[in-house]
Amino acid sequence: MKNTLSISIVALILGALVGCAQAPIQLSQMGSFHVGGREVVISGKPIKEVYFAQGGVPAKVDPNGVYQVEQMYVQYFIPKDPRGSLPLLMWHGGGLSGVTYETTPDGREGWLNYFVKKGWSTYNSDAVERGRSGWAMYPEVFKTDPVFLTKENPFERFRIGQGAGSYNKDVSKMKPMPGSLFPIEGYDNFTKQNVPRWTSTDEPTIAAYTELVDKVCPCVVVVHSQSGLFGIRVAQARPDKVKALVLVEPAAVGAIADAPKMKTVPVLAIYGDYIEQDSRWPTIRGNGIKYYEALRASGGSADVIDLPKIGMKGNSHMIMMDRNSDQVAGLIQDWLAKLGLYK
Amino acid sequence: MKNTLSISIVALILGALVGCAQAPIQLSQMGSFHVGGREVVISGKPIKEVYFAQGGVPAKVDPNGVYQVEQMYVQYFIPKDPRGSLPLLMWHGGGLSGVTYETTPDGREGWLNYFVKKGWSTYNSDAVERGRSGWAMYPEVFKTDPVFLTKENPFERFRIGQGAGSYNKDVSKMKPMPGSLFPIEGYDNFTKQNVPRWTSTDEPTIAAYTELVDKVCPCVVVVHSQSGLFGIRVAQARPDKVKALVLVEPAAVGAIADAPKMKTVPVLAIYGDYIEQDSRWPTIRGNGIKYYEALRASGGSADVIDLPKIGMKGNSHMIMMDRNSDQVAGLIQDWLAKLGLYK
Repeated sequence: MKNTLSISIVALILGALVGCAQAPIQLSQMGSFHVGGREVVISGKPIKEVYFAQGGVPAKVDPNGVYQVEQMYVQYFIPKDPRGSLPLLMWHGGGLSGVTYETTPDGREGWLNYFVKKGWSTYNSDAVERGRSGWAMYPEVFKTDPVFLTKENPFERFRIGQGAGSYNKDVSKMKPMPGSLFPIEGYDNFTKQNVPRWTSTDEPTIAAYTELVDKVCPCVVVVHSQSGLFGIRVAQARPDKVKALVLVEPAAVGAIADAPKMKTVPVLAIYGDYIEQDSRWPTIRGNGIKYYEALRASGGSADVIDLPKIGMKGNSHMIMMDRNSDQVAGLIQDWLAKLGLYK
Repeated sequence: MKNTLSISIVALILGALVGCAQAPIQLSQMGSFHVGGREVVISGKPIKEVYFAQGGVPAKVDPNGVYQVEQMYVQYFIPKDPRGSLPLLMWHGGGLSGVTYETTPDGREGWLNYFVKKGWSTYNSDAVERGRSGWAMYPEVFKTDPVFLTKENPFERFRIGQGAGSYNKDVSKMKPMPGSLFPIEGYDNFTKQNVPRWTSTDEPTIAAYTELVDKVCPCVVVVHSQSGLFGIRVAQARPDKVKALVLVEPAAVGAIADAPKMKTVPVLAIYGDYIEQDSRWPTIRGNGIKYYEALRASGGSADVIDLPKIGMKGNSHMIMMDRNSDQVAGLIQDWLAKLGLYK
């Protein structure tokens, strides 16, 4: 009798546990929204007859009127049991979109999944004129032409390959940096996530990111490459709302004279390998170092991790896609935990 | 002793249950990838010096070379305990992206969350040249100019407002269709998810969707508006892989002569309200009806739901955003369950 009872109780407990086995990703919410943007009026253009669908019915389209431009797309994932004390915002680099932080080009989980699984409420955005943010007429709204990149350009410029001539469509003939951790077998996939971009849209982009920060912060902001400037400019404008700023290989850092404005914002800057062999990156990193020094001189805090110096060799500019992406995410996670931002 | 034992056992069971309370969204995986596309060579253009970041270091960019074009972005959510027997693919309409199926413009959960929560492994894509799929140079690659829509255009054309002149920036001055279920307070948000589009990219788009179907199907495909044609063309090409096709207000349906090719694919077509008042929609719907008749005549199956006829009045062209979006999703869910595709 006693044994029978024990067995049924054990079965009951096991049944309850099996029935509610934890899913790897548990969310209380997921969704998306757009922030920012403005309206512009276009006039003086002829009315067009447009076939929106092959075999469809033509519609008259008057291109004159009011347009929505410069808005920004944000997708969010809220864990069931948040452990990050604040939302974590991820801002991608130039010629890319929020896809930067999703599945890596060789099919591993990216930083979006890493931080969501760790329990951070994560907001992944597409900058103004990139991806799901849409883009506006040029030269009417954007004053320059868009920039398109050839397949070889990022291979040579992002310190994946050994400079000019290192790219080859045939992976076995590519010349990656010795010891490179970029998953070159996925390079072709990586080029598929490249999107056209403008070089004249910094101000509307900063305006949209500022509106995002006003909407969902206080928060942690993680930026990459082109977004270095955006993260710093927004932190300068909203030092009360950006509680920590992680700069992953920032391509630009803004005016040194403005550094004191964000002296209350703890900064972590991370740089990969092969910087010294590159024609541009010693200067880009050097500009960053000067900014962090100015920040410290004004009473602020800036930690710099040069990955090779702590024994992590082989990182390209696309650190979140490199084979050790989880290890580098772990450095960010540990730094945020040390700031007391993780429960 | 016996009581003490019972109490600790009850506490143990309760503890186990509380510790693993079910999250509203439980996923075994989420991620993204790109499919399709091709390489094109661009030549004869001058080398440019580009400042990729304000205050950055200029880079020489040679625009001549090989470009990746016409690829397509897909984001997927795999439930922990799938109940849909097959993956469910969602394809959006013209001038839009996969955002169509995410949070509605007034902030409710969209069809993506609906079907993921029901237990469908859901793949939401951005068509070629939309959103995170990127776009290619024109006229070099795409042979026409992009089409941009004014803020009033979809209001008047998607049977939200009472035709020309019905849009107003001030929501209180908008003239929606009497009884309209479109959440006009969110119309401004809706215009933020509009993206430029081309009218000359049907073939590469169909090629990319076909590659997606080859990658993840057998499956169910849900399409809207412009994607009506894409869903039908792909079902004709892959009738063994598209096990059910849901056409939500298809804007075009393709050649009637080809209908027999997809006679093994069960079709559900759904139309909203105000069709007869519109200048184009009676013809568009009429073309659909002729196609479904041809499909039935060849031995196929096509169910047509005109929502007003079953008592659901007030739906615009953007049915997945209308206030009764969950109810209409429920009709799709029930139809799929009747086909035996839901466990």
